[in-house]
Amino acid sequence: MQYDFSEMIDRRHTDSVKWDVQDNELPMWVADMDFRTAPGIISAIKQKADGGIFGYEEVPAAYFEAVQHWYATEHNWTPHTDWMRFVTGVVPALSSAVRRLSHVGDNVLVQAPVYNIFYNSIVNNGRHALSSDLQFHAGAYAIDWDDLATKMAEPLTTMMILCNPHNPVGKVWTSADLQHIAELAATHHVTVFSDEIHGDITDAGHGYTPFAAVSDLAANLSVTAVSPSKTFNVAALHAATLIIPNENLRNQVDRGINTDELAEPNAFAIPGSIAAYTTGSQWVHELNATITANKQTLTTFVQQQLPELHVIAGHATYLVWIDCRDVTHDTQALCSAIRQTTGLFISAGAVYGGDGHDFVRINVACPPARLQDGLNRLAAGIHQFEQA
Amino acid sequence: MQYDFSEMIDRRHTDSVKWDVQDNELPMWVADMDFRTAPGIISAIKQKADGGIFGYEEVPAAYFEAVQHWYATEHNWTPHTDWMRFVTGVVPALSSAVRRLSHVGDNVLVQAPVYNIFYNSIVNNGRHALSSDLQFHAGAYAIDWDDLATKMAEPLTTMMILCNPHNPVGKVWTSADLQHIAELAATHHVTVFSDEIHGDITDAGHGYTPFAAVSDLAANLSVTAVSPSKTFNVAALHAATLIIPNENLRNQVDRGINTDELAEPNAFAIPGSIAAYTTGSQWVHELNATITANKQTLTTFVQQQLPELHVIAGHATYLVWIDCRDVTHDTQALCSAIRQTTGLFISAGAVYGGDGHDFVRINVACPPARLQDGLNRLAAGIHQFEQA
Ligand SMILES: Cc1ncc(COP(=O)(O)O)c(C=O)c1O
Ligand SMILES: Cc1ncc(COP(=O)(O)O)c(C=O)c1O
Repeated sequence: MQYDFSEMIDRRHTDSVKWDVQDNELPMWVADMDFRTAPGIISAIKQKADGGIFGYEEVPAAYFEAVQHWYATEHNWTPHTDWMRFVTGVVPALSSAVRRLSHVGDNVLVQAPVYNIFYNSIVNNGRHALSSDLQFHAGAYAIDWDDLATKMAEPLTTMMILCNPHNPVGKVWTSADLQHIAELAATHHVTVFSDEIHGDITDAGHGYTPFAAVSDLAANLSVTAVSPSKTFNVAALHAATLIIPNENLRNQVDRGINTDELAEPNAFAIPGSIAAYTTGSQWVHELNATITANKQTLTTFVQQQLPELHVIAGHATYLVWIDCRDVTHDTQALCSAIRQTTGLFISAGAVYGGDGHDFVRINVACPPARLQDGLNRLAAGIHQFEQA
Repeated sequence: MQYDFSEMIDRRHTDSVKWDVQDNELPMWVADMDFRTAPGIISAIKQKADGGIFGYEEVPAAYFEAVQHWYATEHNWTPHTDWMRFVTGVVPALSSAVRRLSHVGDNVLVQAPVYNIFYNSIVNNGRHALSSDLQFHAGAYAIDWDDLATKMAEPLTTMMILCNPHNPVGKVWTSADLQHIAELAATHHVTVFSDEIHGDITDAGHGYTPFAAVSDLAANLSVTAVSPSKTFNVAALHAATLIIPNENLRNQVDRGINTDELAEPNAFAIPGSIAAYTTGSQWVHELNATITANKQTLTTFVQQQLPELHVIAGHATYLVWIDCRDVTHDTQALCSAIRQTTGLFISAGAVYGGDGHDFVRINVACPPARLQDGLNRLAAGIHQFEQA
């Protein structure tokens, strides 16, 4: 490996949301990583800082070309640069799209359990979150196609938010799944917002498929959001890209992101993203190998030490979804107990909706030594909970 | 002087909005400066970059304390830190406040000629921009109090946007002016959004007064926006602060900036702003001396070479408002002609509303040598226009 993913960086007292914890606590919750980002990004930012003038910025063609290059080389998809718009974040853009592409009172479809903030983007804007819950069967999740078709057909359903790949269940959707969704959406006049923020983080040999890449049908009815933020651990770079092949849809969303003031980059967003997309490939592949190994370590540990838990095998994201139903159906209480007895801070699944209350989500994007500390705390916490 | 405001920095081809011009052109339009920012800001950003982890960030108490320190030491006003909210920019926050504090179809009051983007924030959100035009008399602007009272009294008028100090006329409002506005607003149940982004840039001895500082009455019905962006030439740092003494108003605006995703800082916004507010005082005082001298140079030049123009004497902002009515009532045509014949790019006044079509706005925040180049082009351009 060319890069070091084992360094134990102390993130306490750095204004990190993740690490705003007590001194004895270990956070493995919110989706950011304990790794320093790729060195090319850091140099690009420092070079920009040296310039010392941080006035109003335009998004140069080089930015869109870098995004295109990344998708062409990493994901075998070459979106046109004129389909793209810079935005300051995936969630801000999603909220804006909800406001532009649906009306107050409409249904916005999601697939629970799913990234909890989707519900905020829907509900805070006066829309109704309608879930076609993923079906959990024999340790794996799948789409209930009849249910999805029924819910798409409801007249008030105008939009669907797809999490591709899926947080928290770690699932990489197949091309067939995506095409099926596109067909239903076309039949029922539903616009699909495909959040692909986790698309780069997959096990080797299990790359994800961009929704818009599966067919012209899918491309035409979708807004895709991508970002270096999860991939390179740069959430606070505030950089993301919308990719919208359909011109009319693009114009509508464009209007929204401008009125909502999400279209202007900060001074570091552009150089940082260009560096990520043009110099970061090897770093990401090594990151992915590290995450794959960490997921394997966790899975083996749980099998051996905590057979009452069941790890959901997922090939995407650095978030691991664990079935705890043999211990409790109230993982909020479980997580609070674990935090109190061991200091380990993991996410209780209820906020993701659906059957989430039976699950916990653990963020394994940390050095192996820190993961081991977390796993020991997890075992101790579960055992104490069982004895209480 | 400890800092150098004479360096001719080449900003062409840096993705600068201001400098997106032809090679022979000289931009003196949009409000950013051609000076490198204060060195403390650059080091703080580089130090943050070195950390290399840019995950989700919290706004620390030190940020609000730095804002408080700046207003206490520079402007003799000590806002409580718990009145403050971080936002990603003044205009984004203004648009959000318009959405939260007024209804579709309401009147939002402005005082034309005024910063053109105010109209966007109003009109793009389906509100009506109602202007109580400033009165121009004997070379100076003043408020028409009867007209303002009448327009405040209209039942649909729910909000006023105050530009304090005023862009483009460069006026520092007196405490008496501000108190009078507060009294009218209180009588007519109007919320005042006071945009104080230009507050730090004033001639020595002509400091501005924060609206909320004039009285409890003013404090209670206002939202004040401040930012290091104009002061330190860091528009693309994406950092600003709302100061809202009234708890109920604060809660409403807070809800808006969260739903609109304007409340989370990028990785550099906090360290950059803290450095600005705690180490930048001397830099700003020297900047102000430079701008005062540049305004004087321009005024003298115009008196001697272009007596048909009349510079409006203003003690605030680095933007100079020039009356061109003796040359034309269509300064848009004049500015186009000047740009075409000399490459000088200045702002035509019509976009600011009111009597703006008689005026041009020139940005003098540049090294004296560049200003001289601009003035020579201005004279040549005006003379050619007059002969055409
Ligand atoms: C599916 C998904 N979308 C979006 C985000 C956040 O995106 P941003 O920080 O760009 O708003 C996350 C973060 O965890 C996520 O998991
Ligand atoms: C009065 C006024 N408010 C706000 C802004 C811009 O603020 P921001 O860049 O923080 O949105 C400007 C820029 O020229 C301005 O003149």
